[in-house]
Amino acid sequence: MNRPFVMSLHAITMLAAAFLAPANAQAEDPLASWNDGPAKAAIVNFVEATTAEGLPSFVPQEERIAVFDNDGTLWAEQPLYFQFMFMVDQLKLAAPNHPEWKDNPAFKALVAHDPPALAKMGPKPVLELLAVANSGMTVDAYDKAIRDWLEMARHPKFKRPYPELAYRPMQEVLAYLRANGFKTFIVSGGSIEFMRPWAEKTYGIPPEQVIGSVSQVRFDMKDGQPVLYRMPKIEFVDDGPGKPVGIYRNIGRRPIAAFGNSDGDLQMLQYTAAGDGARLMLIVHHTDAEREYAYDRKSQIGKLDKALDEANAKGWIVVDMKTDWNRIFTSD
Amino acid sequence: MNRPFVMSLHAITMLAAAFLAPANAQAEDPLASWNDGPAKAAIVNFVEATTAEGLPSFVPQEERIAVFDNDGTLWAEQPLYFQFMFMVDQLKLAAPNHPEWKDNPAFKALVAHDPPALAKMGPKPVLELLAVANSGMTVDAYDKAIRDWLEMARHPKFKRPYPELAYRPMQEVLAYLRANGFKTFIVSGGSIEFMRPWAEKTYGIPPEQVIGSVSQVRFDMKDGQPVLYRMPKIEFVDDGPGKPVGIYRNIGRRPIAAFGNSDGDLQMLQYTAAGDGARLMLIVHHTDAEREYAYDRKSQIGKLDKALDEANAKGWIVVDMKTDWNRIFTSD
Repeated sequence: MNRPFVMSLHAITMLAAAFLAPANAQAEDPLASWNDGPAKAAIVNFVEATTAEGLPSFVPQEERIAVFDNDGTLWAEQPLYFQFMFMVDQLKLAAPNHPEWKDNPAFKALVAHDPPALAKMGPKPVLELLAVANSGMTVDAYDKAIRDWLEMARHPKFKRPYPELAYRPMQEVLAYLRANGFKTFIVSGGSIEFMRPWAEKTYGIPPEQVIGSVSQVRFDMKDGQPVLYRMPKIEFVDDGPGKPVGIYRNIGRRPIAAFGNSDGDLQMLQYTAAGDGARLMLIVHHTDAEREYAYDRKSQIGKLDKALDEANAKGWIVVDMKTDWNRIFTSD
Repeated sequence: MNRPFVMSLHAITMLAAAFLAPANAQAEDPLASWNDGPAKAAIVNFVEATTAEGLPSFVPQEERIAVFDNDGTLWAEQPLYFQFMFMVDQLKLAAPNHPEWKDNPAFKALVAHDPPALAKMGPKPVLELLAVANSGMTVDAYDKAIRDWLEMARHPKFKRPYPELAYRPMQEVLAYLRANGFKTFIVSGGSIEFMRPWAEKTYGIPPEQVIGSVSQVRFDMKDGQPVLYRMPKIEFVDDGPGKPVGIYRNIGRRPIAAFGNSDGDLQMLQYTAAGDGARLMLIVHHTDAEREYAYDRKSQIGKLDKALDEANAKGWIVVDMKTDWNRIFTSD
């Protein structure tokens, strides 16, 4: 088999290139669901500025940390946070065992699907109700309840499973950042348990990069087997000023890029903006009543008011969903 | 430049091989500091069993989670946990402002370097003292205090900076696992702040993979700048039964490999062992009074008693430091 044969230098170059070239040498636009405009240009410019060695704006790979709010930033959040939909169903199941709930404001607001009342009280009372409902449940049983619900439940307007309401343009941003050496994290007010079962498949974000609100969990041995039980206490609310704290605890580095959509993301955006060097702060503005929802300053869910003022004042990127995105959902 | 020339198939094969071969095709032993024996063989067999596609024991890369205790497992811990050495110095500095400490048992035990008393009370009272001492400090100032101390402080016996007392054989295990697609985490009773500044350089473990005890931190805006302040409260103790809880919160998957050295690691080892498929549970047994320290059941620091019994009963790997390691410290 060692017979000599004739080969051109060109052929050798092509052979070598075939071994060396990435599969997507003729890559399609990694942000194909984004229309050309200032938002898309800002994302591309930021990535190019931080990844080109030699530029003063270059950032070493280990410092390329990007954080994403979930509800309203990576997937939809109207007419009510999807985790609240899950909780309503869970609480209805548990209600017969908890007659004391009938006067609980959070329980009443949940069952009545009353976003104004829920928004006014914030996520904590609702998380606390559910913590009581599920107290003593193993984390494995809770995980199964969430997975079963996600399979069964459908969005009231779009009639699709909730994970199919992830935003395709944001999935592209996640993949584009990772392809450029970024590590992507979710930083959400939702509970870690509710996001982990589908975040890896939907966003490419593994469970260990999902930061969220945390319920107390207790370790015990039962019949010689180690078991983790849920306890009726919320230990950490990863919302508003809790987001930089969650980032500090779970990442330990200041992000260089942050993506949000509401006032609950303001402190995470401020914290990201306050670092040195190139920064990307981006807000998804829900402006598309036809394809999704249009809401901001007056909304009870995902209220965007102070953060919009600050974005305008500081030059953060505000995505106009209606004009910037040529496609909304991953399932469109 | 397109002139034809003669090339053998063999030469083309070599050319292709040069493009494709990893740099370490003629690799040295990745566990060179380990003597041949059952411990080394168990590590290699586990990695080969979990990474060879087609074997029933194969584990997909994203599930290859390995967790490591720090004190006594990745670096030394005698005559007193190194973080306690730091705390002693910090508390001495703060003592004039806290006359109430003179009757505090944790303070007295720390200043007297009294390991039996400290061991009896566990890490929480000591962490609480320091939390009070540093309350109101920004996390950046605290980080600097730790970095300054690490630069200045020397181990009383070995007269070297503490990070140089990392165990070379364990650094090799970390690198060997990562080279085989594992993600490596620290899961320690020490505080996240004390480990993060040097864990990346010393162990190749980035801050976001350092799980430890957590103090309360508060976000605030000061002069238009976001700041994180330390608060006088310990929120989570990542020791003993806290370790599986820390793993659940921060990783969200059950590890397939766990490395410890004391009874404080027992629950982490049990939790790891209880999963399906191939598992590696390993305990570092300190048997080398000459090169390091010899201690186990009777030690006040790093007591290894119940976990040693369970290791023997369950067939977990027990490393005999004296015979299994031909080199101890990274700085030897």
